[in-house]
Amino acid sequence: MLLVKAGGGRDLNWEGVCADIAEIRASEPVVLVHGASTLRDDLAARLNVPVRTVVSPSGVTSVYTDREAIEVFLMAYAGLANKRLVAGLLRGGVPAVGLCGVDGRLWEAVPKKDIPVVENGKTKLLRDNLTGRVERVNTGLLRLLIDNGYVPVLCAPAISAEGEIVNTDNDLAAAVMAGALGITRMVYLFEAPGLLRDPGHEDTRIARVGRDGIEAVLPFARGRMKKKIMGVRKALDAGVETVYFGDGRIDHPVRSALAGNGTVFG
Amino acid sequence: MLLVKAGGGRDLNWEGVCADIAEIRASEPVVLVHGASTLRDDLAARLNVPVRTVVSPSGVTSVYTDREAIEVFLMAYAGLANKRLVAGLLRGGVPAVGLCGVDGRLWEAVPKKDIPVVENGKTKLLRDNLTGRVERVNTGLLRLLIDNGYVPVLCAPAISAEGEIVNTDNDLAAAVMAGALGITRMVYLFEAPGLLRDPGHEDTRIARVGRDGIEAVLPFARGRMKKKIMGVRKALDAGVETVYFGDGRIDHPVRSALAGNGTVFG
Repeated sequence: MLLVKAGGGRDLNWEGVCADIAEIRASEPVVLVHGASTLRDDLAARLNVPVRTVVSPSGVTSVYTDREAIEVFLMAYAGLANKRLVAGLLRGGVPAVGLCGVDGRLWEAVPKKDIPVVENGKTKLLRDNLTGRVERVNTGLLRLLIDNGYVPVLCAPAISAEGEIVNTDNDLAAAVMAGALGITRMVYLFEAPGLLRDPGHEDTRIARVGRDGIEAVLPFARGRMKKKIMGVRKALDAGVETVYFGDGRIDHPVRSALAGNGTVFG
Repeated sequence: MLLVKAGGGRDLNWEGVCADIAEIRASEPVVLVHGASTLRDDLAARLNVPVRTVVSPSGVTSVYTDREAIEVFLMAYAGLANKRLVAGLLRGGVPAVGLCGVDGRLWEAVPKKDIPVVENGKTKLLRDNLTGRVERVNTGLLRLLIDNGYVPVLCAPAISAEGEIVNTDNDLAAAVMAGALGITRMVYLFEAPGLLRDPGHEDTRIARVGRDGIEAVLPFARGRMKKKIMGVRKALDAGVETVYFGDGRIDHPVRSALAGNGTVFG
């Protein structure tokens, strides 16, 4: 079984992702996790709901999520992006079913209401952040769909044990899910050729990172890329054998990543 | 198996709907179809996307749907309303799974691109309306979920055979689905005590309409209510034995409707 996580950047080649999945699923089951950050940002701007980004003391960037932000999130991710992608896959003959982490408690997250953030050089505690870390996956529901030939198309948000809708990081959630499903190969697609030594130069791609080399490449990861590297580490720790980073903007983005044209971890 | 269709009005008692479903599903499977017209209208207003209502030559009101309207629709129905309702059911211990008609071709609709509408007293042909009539239901996917203890929570839009996302009428789609699933009892909830002889007076409720009496009460139905009566006719023709109209604003809205406190058809 293959898990593909495709980021929500503006230049993602969704048609290419759909075409590759249509081909790959002829020989093995596929689970797709998608982002929608561009759609979310566009919608938030149109609704005049500012997207507030916070930085943790260790330098990891994330989005602060209040009730209004959750609503924008649900609309952009679970509504618009998810169903467009499902329709795209169906057009290519893939029996796709779109769900978010809330459905059937697919992604159960432990909320972290108070999180330390750095603002103007000072660390302070941010309260009432509706965000959490996925720690339990309803693998039964996923297997039910997969065993019956469906391709699950998944996205955040997640749900807490108390039934509160909480934002969660798609990259980390995908890694946790890969482990829970016993998946051995996983692909992350985004708007770069792979992990770069210098994010400003696409010719500084790192082609291969061994299991023990992850700490060494962590300093090259900035912003969102940090979460992906943390996802890789989590996935490998959870039993995934190989994680492929690949360029989501090109033709055959999934196949190209699997061919090792991005960064191969493991 | 019971099918509940709850309208998307502002005063719907969703907590009451969730509580009733939690109780009823202990003894029989439940499928829930929901509207979100208020959320859709609010979102359309905030996004400055006007909701254009058209009237057919026979006096039936519906919403004209272009690409932008479909996007608003996906966000309000499949995103916000659907996932909020799923979370509400999960909080009450109901293993709900939210899907729209697009997912797995759940509701396949035949598009009616050019429709006759009446504007300023004149009938003209409206083109490129992304709307359709549900004619095929993926009962396999629904049964898969139901047989495994899940409660499907469903809404429009639907999908055409060509894979285009199309708006569809939830009331009629619910009726078609009830027939396809062999459901014998069906509940429609909305913001009135039942079918009224005079929509301005809530004490003019019609308590019971026999199978042969539907034509006779059709003149009492105005606006959206026309579609519901057409839904009743379609449901009864498709094998549903009893259709219950009920007040969605009150305590125990589903149980109250099933107790015959609204309008009972069949």
